Amino acid sequence: MALSDNFRKVTPYVPGEQPKIRNIIKLNTNENPYPPAPGVQKALADLKDDFAELRKYPAPNCDLLEEAIGKYYGISRENLFVGVGSDDVLSMAFLTFFGSDKPVLFPDITYSFYDVWAEVYRIPYKQIPLDENFEIHAEDYRMENGGIVIANPNAPTGVAKSRDWMEAFLKEHRDTVVIVDEAYVDFGGESCLSLIDQFDNLLVVQTFSKSRALAGLRIGMAFGCKELIRYLKDVKFSVNSYTMNMPSLLLGAASIEDDAYFRSRVDQIIATRERVKLQLKSLGFEIPDSKTNFLFVSHPKKHAEEIFAALREEGIIVRHFKKPRIDNYLRISIGTDEEMDRLVNAMAKIIQNA
Amino acid sequence: MALSDNFRKVTPYVPGEQPKIRNIIKLNTNENPYPPAPGVQKALADLKDDFAELRKYPAPNCDLLEEAIGKYYGISRENLFVGVGSDDVLSMAFLTFFGSDKPVLFPDITYSFYDVWAEVYRIPYKQIPLDENFEIHAEDYRMENGGIVIANPNAPTGVAKSRDWMEAFLKEHRDTVVIVDEAYVDFGGESCLSLIDQFDNLLVVQTFSKSRALAGLRIGMAFGCKELIRYLKDVKFSVNSYTMNMPSLLLGAASIEDDAYFRSRVDQIIATRERVKLQLKSLGFEIPDSKTNFLFVSHPKKHAEEIFAALREEGIIVRHFKKPRIDNYLRISIGTDEEMDRLVNAMAKIIQNA
Repeated sequence: MALSDNFRKVTPYVPGEQPKIRNIIKLNTNENPYPPAPGVQKALADLKDDFAELRKYPAPNCDLLEEAIGKYYGISRENLFVGVGSDDVLSMAFLTFFGSDKPVLFPDITYSFYDVWAEVYRIPYKQIPLDENFEIHAEDYRMENGGIVIANPNAPTGVAKSRDWMEAFLKEHRDTVVIVDEAYVDFGGESCLSLIDQFDNLLVVQTFSKSRALAGLRIGMAFGCKELIRYLKDVKFSVNSYTMNMPSLLLGAASIEDDAYFRSRVDQIIATRERVKLQLKSLGFEIPDSKTNFLFVSHPKKHAEEIFAALREEGIIVRHFKKPRIDNYLRISIGTDEEMDRLVNAMAKIIQNA
Repeated sequence: MALSDNFRKVTPYVPGEQPKIRNIIKLNTNENPYPPAPGVQKALADLKDDFAELRKYPAPNCDLLEEAIGKYYGISRENLFVGVGSDDVLSMAFLTFFGSDKPVLFPDITYSFYDVWAEVYRIPYKQIPLDENFEIHAEDYRMENGGIVIANPNAPTGVAKSRDWMEAFLKEHRDTVVIVDEAYVDFGGESCLSLIDQFDNLLVVQTFSKSRALAGLRIGMAFGCKELIRYLKDVKFSVNSYTMNMPSLLLGAASIEDDAYFRSRVDQIIATRERVKLQLKSLGFEIPDSKTNFLFVSHPKKHAEEIFAALREEGIIVRHFKKPRIDNYLRISIGTDEEMDRLVNAMAKIIQNA
């Protein structure tokens, strides 16, 4: 018998590249183009002065950060779980809640980590096709299942469902846990957070990585009823007592306190998105309405892969997924206005030659 | 059927308390009493200046940190894995390597997270009793197994095996992965790092939390042959692409570069430990030889639980495990000389009254 016979063998998720080329315009990982809240810099100054504190373990219950998030959203800490980015939160949720032998359901086109988590934890799953407009239809989910995961807004399409739609959907699915992954919700989507009291099987997942410009810190969170959160915390404390390090706790708490800064940056990104969408549409691009910080674009006259390569020549990196049904699309993160002007100009040139 | 029927239900590990009382002497979580290397403060100053960088994802391959660790230990990055503390590394290793239906073996008295990971990942395990002097005997491990975990030095006993003993042990166990958990090795133990070329089933795990005084940052690492590390990285990238945040990568790299500082602090802790051991022994305490930053102590005239309570009255917190065979012991972390003087004085008073 070979040593590796009992090893867990998986095909991992491949994150968007982090190129080291200078002066490149990086529109491929949905990062926020603006800095985090100024309070984060102040918190770093304090941590620098108190750096000897790093010798101690961080608070395992993440007190400071949980209190700040709880206060911001007006919810109790019993309804709140934090993790190392929403990936950590989602991974723990898959491990905790999806123990049925019936398949977990999620769309065929969605965040491409869901099937990876299902594989690594050996959870059966079934991918339900979106329609040709990338829309989810509730009737397609009417089957026995071990849980459901809906990214809302969806990625990489940017398409969102309303809270009313989600509420009706949740009313149909009360017997297994429904995860609503709201990584992009702050850019114009409608959150299901207000529904957690009504549905004891609803877990809402959000992140600091996009709207709060803190991808480098790795902070994600889940909201749910007391019982769901308790099970999730038990599993977390069975995997790693101290997932959140001291900088995450301090800087994360400082970041969420500054709501005015947050709203002004989010509004700016939405305004840029809508302006760029019109400009790209006038170049002939087809783009579903986006409630995220990215656009999902396709052009009838030039294949996405060719556009991807041509943009790269111009020093602009976007995301192309070599996957069925979406391989003729590009996902373009919303950068600063200057960056997006350069993108639109490059696209005009590329399409002119098509 | 209840919603929770398919949930993963576990009894989590309980970390040592982080009391918020001021002026307390905290000798309960094996934290380093000295600050991290001064370079860490400099790295925090740089991060403060560049705080806008936090909007970006950290390097998923942890380049800066892996390069610094690899350089320090003279090993290739192909032989190195980093995680969110050694708990994250060990948890991933359990998930990756222990897929057999035969039991994973570890001592009955050891780091109390091993059985928790086995439970959460549903791995069969068997606890092999240490002898009455807390020693491991190689012959007790001669049985079919799905893997072996040895903490060396062991926790919470502090007792260490030599590298020669470990090498002979490894020669007997070539068919399953053997994890050697060296969380405390820098305080006088002998590392198995030099054996990873010789044994393709050996995974050596270490941490920045104790000897490098960075418990607050959460950095752990594993060393092993190329193949083991590749499997481990595949699983990691199937759980969370970006486990290590930007502060961890930057500050961790800065910390490991300062070897002179590291050695002087470790030497100081060892000197304090040996001095305190003699003082406590002269008070009648029984203490196995420790190669760690803690002492595991018992007194024939007073029960550990009573001593624990009496120390707490004096503002000194140590660790007591309510577990079979060790409930009459206390684990005392090595603090500064001043802290340990207060401990020894308190102990003298407590024992005098016994």
